[in-house]
Amino acid sequence: MSDATYFQLAVDAAKQGTDTWTNPQVGAVIVKDDHLLAVGYHHRFGHRHAEIDALSQLDDTSQAAGATMYVTLEPCSHYGKTPPCAKRLAEVKIAKVVIGQLDPNPLVSGKGVAILQQHGIEVQIRHETGGLNAAYNFFYRQNRPWVTVKYAMSLDGKINAAGEQRTHLTETPALKDAQAVRRQHQAILVGEHTLSIDDPQLTVREGQPMVFPPVRIAVVHDVNDFQNSRHLFDDQAPTWIFSQTEASQQLPENVQVIVNSDWTPTAIVSYLAKKGIQSLLVEGGSAMQAAFIAAGLADEVIVYLAPILIGGTGLPAVVGSALSQQEHFSSPTVTQLGNDIKIQSRRQ
Amino acid sequence: MSDATYFQLAVDAAKQGTDTWTNPQVGAVIVKDDHLLAVGYHHRFGHRHAEIDALSQLDDTSQAAGATMYVTLEPCSHYGKTPPCAKRLAEVKIAKVVIGQLDPNPLVSGKGVAILQQHGIEVQIRHETGGLNAAYNFFYRQNRPWVTVKYAMSLDGKINAAGEQRTHLTETPALKDAQAVRRQHQAILVGEHTLSIDDPQLTVREGQPMVFPPVRIAVVHDVNDFQNSRHLFDDQAPTWIFSQTEASQQLPENVQVIVNSDWTPTAIVSYLAKKGIQSLLVEGGSAMQAAFIAAGLADEVIVYLAPILIGGTGLPAVVGSALSQQEHFSSPTVTQLGNDIKIQSRRQ
Repeated sequence: MSDATYFQLAVDAAKQGTDTWTNPQVGAVIVKDDHLLAVGYHHRFGHRHAEIDALSQLDDTSQAAGATMYVTLEPCSHYGKTPPCAKRLAEVKIAKVVIGQLDPNPLVSGKGVAILQQHGIEVQIRHETGGLNAAYNFFYRQNRPWVTVKYAMSLDGKINAAGEQRTHLTETPALKDAQAVRRQHQAILVGEHTLSIDDPQLTVREGQPMVFPPVRIAVVHDVNDFQNSRHLFDDQAPTWIFSQTEASQQLPENVQVIVNSDWTPTAIVSYLAKKGIQSLLVEGGSAMQAAFIAAGLADEVIVYLAPILIGGTGLPAVVGSALSQQEHFSSPTVTQLGNDIKIQSRRQ
Repeated sequence: MSDATYFQLAVDAAKQGTDTWTNPQVGAVIVKDDHLLAVGYHHRFGHRHAEIDALSQLDDTSQAAGATMYVTLEPCSHYGKTPPCAKRLAEVKIAKVVIGQLDPNPLVSGKGVAILQQHGIEVQIRHETGGLNAAYNFFYRQNRPWVTVKYAMSLDGKINAAGEQRTHLTETPALKDAQAVRRQHQAILVGEHTLSIDDPQLTVREGQPMVFPPVRIAVVHDVNDFQNSRHLFDDQAPTWIFSQTEASQQLPENVQVIVNSDWTPTAIVSYLAKKGIQSLLVEGGSAMQAAFIAAGLADEVIVYLAPILIGGTGLPAVVGSALSQQEHFSSPTVTQLGNDIKIQSRRQ
């Protein structure tokens, strides 16, 4: 079989790691004399890396001697939660390593390759991601999380009818898809108005329970305006409240209040970057959407368009902050979801 | 060949009649002993009907004796611009007529069939339109034109950036498609603000020149605020100005001013119905769109969605008049047009 085929097996294996959280998804296969000896992947944040997982599938580690490993990401070079994989590959006398992409973290990029080469291992880099770890790569290259702004909108560009009552726009298939979109993000953010009107759970309720659910974030003026009875204060996921004031009462253990005099999108994203959050989903309301767009912090827009007319007094999907200059996005990807359509577009 | 096949030939022929204007598109074929003898269609408003056109294709009219005619619409029964087709079919001794649909006009519906049957002709009605004459059928059943509301919109539901300058959202493929949409309507309407800012031509500039171009309509407070230099006053098409005041100056021959103290969408549509206009395209601006939607007079919505973000101070696509209750439309039809997408949805 070809290099490309073995590499694809490693990519497919990587995708099985659904709880890697802020770690990348990584897959690895071991091949000798054109025989596939082992397939491994990083199962879960904190567990062993893909390379070690693949080695563990061998009947005997000595089989690795002289073999080729295909691995989707550069083997690590540092002592973290596990010893460095590059050293381990040298120990077991792997002869050649075919790597998908270098680690995007500039502090470690290339160091794994250097260790391998120091030990006389042949290294080949494919310079392809296999579609894995988009947010991880973005995070280390741009030093901030990938931001997706998501909203449901009527045919006439509204997210709600006039008044304080919530308008339900989309139907089950779109609502399920929105849950899958949540699963792809490490944090989900709403503004104060959405918190008041919708009392959202901001949890992933479709599919397998998540070991590391997205952090739920609410941006509010005064945390003390919101009682513990809100869904966000339940114990379903970590919750961070970005407030201008300290909490005057005791809050549940999973709730943190982070105080700043002005939580602009830039300040929020900068804080999340420091905390290692690689992807953020902005889920409303229209003023919060406008604020992220105006700050140039909408990397992707997901619109669920419902075939409904709300009329001229409805609340526009995006309203408030100005954008100095219009931004051009990529040609949209359109998916039919029941009667609704999903429109995805990324910053060009 | 089957009835369905011959009927389809008649439908295909009908579609060649591109200048029938307020007349329906009609096609007719003559078949005898399972041989196709002639194909005809209504070419142009004022010209002969499809049945007569088909008869004219015969080498000798006597060939029609004993033949079957497949015709997409009930043959006419009245002396209009041409003598009644139903009588003519009897004269040439057609034995059987297979009709797609009865004439939707309740004043004449069934009368053509009655004449045929009085003359001993066998009549079969398929009760299908072949996709022809949607506006014509709607007009005679609902006593008003079919109204399409059309706008280009950004990903964030805006039609224009803040300020008076026009924002160009869509690219060439969508702009060309919008011209094709104009061709499908008998009148095109804009409000006063759009007339001021855009100075639109409201003509069909793609494809064959139209013998009967759509009537251009502007709804204004005072026609005297608009000078003859506007594109709408040129001689490219008939123009109707719906104004609250009479014109104080001489206007070009193709321009009519129709005065009413309050040109609501309902008043406009009622006037157009009286004038026999079967389809109306509302092309903006956002207040006019809102007014038609609020009046329950948006039968179809066409949105050209451009992958652009305009931000929270942009002009929403639809703004102003309230809609008492949200309206559910059909699952949208989506077409990719270059980088833009076209979303079409009809009232359910």
